[in-house]
Amino acid sequence: MAQQHLDPTDPRSRHAGPAPTGDALAGYLRTQATEFLRALRLHRETGSGANGSEASAEAARALRRSARRISASLHTFQPLLDTDWCEGMRPELAWVSGTLAMEHAYTSRLERLLSALHRLSGSTAFPAQATEPAAGPRAGAQSGPTAAQERGNLTVGAAKAGALLDRQLTLARTRAHSTALQALGSSRFHAVADKVAVLASEVPLTTTAAATDLAPHAAAAEERLRDAVAALPLVTAGSPYNAAALTHGLSPDTVPHPQDAPWHQVRLLLRLHRYAREALSGPQGNAVVDLRLLSAGQALNRHRDASEAAAAAAQAARTPRIAPATAYALGVLHADQRHEVEAARFAFQQSWQKEAVSTR
Amino acid sequence: MAQQHLDPTDPRSRHAGPAPTGDALAGYLRTQATEFLRALRLHRETGSGANGSEASAEAARALRRSARRISASLHTFQPLLDTDWCEGMRPELAWVSGTLAMEHAYTSRLERLLSALHRLSGSTAFPAQATEPAAGPRAGAQSGPTAAQERGNLTVGAAKAGALLDRQLTLARTRAHSTALQALGSSRFHAVADKVAVLASEVPLTTTAAATDLAPHAAAAEERLRDAVAALPLVTAGSPYNAAALTHGLSPDTVPHPQDAPWHQVRLLLRLHRYAREALSGPQGNAVVDLRLLSAGQALNRHRDASEAAAAAAQAARTPRIAPATAYALGVLHADQRHEVEAARFAFQQSWQKEAVSTR
Repeated sequence: MAQQHLDPTDPRSRHAGPAPTGDALAGYLRTQATEFLRALRLHRETGSGANGSEASAEAARALRRSARRISASLHTFQPLLDTDWCEGMRPELAWVSGTLAMEHAYTSRLERLLSALHRLSGSTAFPAQATEPAAGPRAGAQSGPTAAQERGNLTVGAAKAGALLDRQLTLARTRAHSTALQALGSSRFHAVADKVAVLASEVPLTTTAAATDLAPHAAAAEERLRDAVAALPLVTAGSPYNAAALTHGLSPDTVPHPQDAPWHQVRLLLRLHRYAREALSGPQGNAVVDLRLLSAGQALNRHRDASEAAAAAAQAARTPRIAPATAYALGVLHADQRHEVEAARFAFQQSWQKEAVSTR
Repeated sequence: MAQQHLDPTDPRSRHAGPAPTGDALAGYLRTQATEFLRALRLHRETGSGANGSEASAEAARALRRSARRISASLHTFQPLLDTDWCEGMRPELAWVSGTLAMEHAYTSRLERLLSALHRLSGSTAFPAQATEPAAGPRAGAQSGPTAAQERGNLTVGAAKAGALLDRQLTLARTRAHSTALQALGSSRFHAVADKVAVLASEVPLTTTAAATDLAPHAAAAEERLRDAVAALPLVTAGSPYNAAALTHGLSPDTVPHPQDAPWHQVRLLLRLHRYAREALSGPQGNAVVDLRLLSAGQALNRHRDASEAAAAAAQAARTPRIAPATAYALGVLHADQRHEVEAARFAFQQSWQKEAVSTR
């Protein structure tokens, strides 16, 4: 199927001249290695304050971006590269991008949860402000003071839930920040940076790589993606309000949610496929963007984020000695994020369907 | 628009001979009055035990069914009927069907909530059994005993939430049962039954009713329905996962949810429209069933049920001194039912769209 591509946006059909070989891969890897080194220099120049400035956060993102691309290419095109070098390099790159990702993940998870609480509170005021006396008697206009108090408790619950999540996720983020700083200063990281510096000028290709076509390897990556997608419950995901994502929402094994794993796996395979396309399209690889792949990938990112946010809300609800109103708000929040998971699966199914129709 | 009907399933186009007039209305009312009296006799024969037998519940449903139809016809075709008689009769019929509806409503609300808890617990065992020691250590196989205990708390929460809802709604149902029994034995009810007995033989039509066409009155009922539907946010409802129903899910004013009111109103108008069609199609009115109207009506019933179940879960969460795990489970349950509300709106939008396309 993948070999029958007639899609005009396919990078291979657009590629001028002969089919891309190991030389194109070497060019792509050199470009990404250079990006990595540039981002690293930027990160050192912007400093690393307690909470990380905007510029240093951007530099960390750029570091992860190139680390992911190098790592993915080592995986997809491994037969064209020195085996020992690949096997030594990939776990180190995964460690770099994984370690650097944590701080950003906690930051955006907290943002996602607080904005959801905000939306669920249905107030223009931020939920954390609802504990202030001025916000309390809002309900009093429609009902007696007792009812207002009763109802107000739920708003207080949302505010307390927000404060609890803020405490827990800010602590986790601060720890992740320290861990990332330590990692960037470690000899282990310096060894990775040295290897990437070598890669920027000299790619360890095998002797036959220059004559080897990249396309079959990229096609294999695409095939792995298609197989994994075919195993997803897409018929269910495509019927709105299937309520599948919240099944087991109160089961003892909510963290992590086992039904999410195949979707997380597809997210990784989609990324490998996308990076393989980039490598095939030559040194300007980054310029080739397939909007449909992007939207499918965005749906899966949203799926991952909502899944982890739901788990964080469930985890916070297990904090000892919280008030019932706080626990109630966390329950609503958990279910809301699980529905985001369901919505993201629907969005993926819709993008993928378009994808499948237009490439066949 | 309503006057331009070309729909072959429309009862008016199917009606043999001249357009239906007050005579057809009288026939319809006599039929419904006879049904009412038959159901009342059945209800008395089947007795009225503490929890109501299946047969007496069925008799109560039949009583409500005919009371609703008589009341609706009095509303839609009021100009053809004696004004004083109509004005005296309608509130009494509303009281009868309203009073008889409560017991059934509490029963089905409890069923809906317990089955949702069951689904959310993701266990084959009923949630109430999870408190038993045998069910507790299920999670222990995958993780340490502490984690199992932590996770188990949520399952215990679902079980406790179920027990709390069971207590509260069973109490409400028992009270509703007593109220209904008292009502059926009251002189107020006997007066209604006497009036219905008269109606079964003699309908108080106005002098001009026999020559008055029913169609314009039925069309006006349809127009009121279409106007109310046009005011609904159907574009939002038609885009899946709009997350509109859970907005304000944690706001102080959750019971009743103000955004649900227009949908409840459409539910009542749809019923009036359906009964008007029945009256127009002559004494065999009950036989004419429009599947599209039925499915739209079922979606709105589901909307109402989920809305009230969500409110019951939120209300239960305000019970003083409940455990945080119970409150968490009730929060998840509330959000789940609000998503059912959203799903029901989507289902209504889908049925209505079909309806609108095929009748124009």
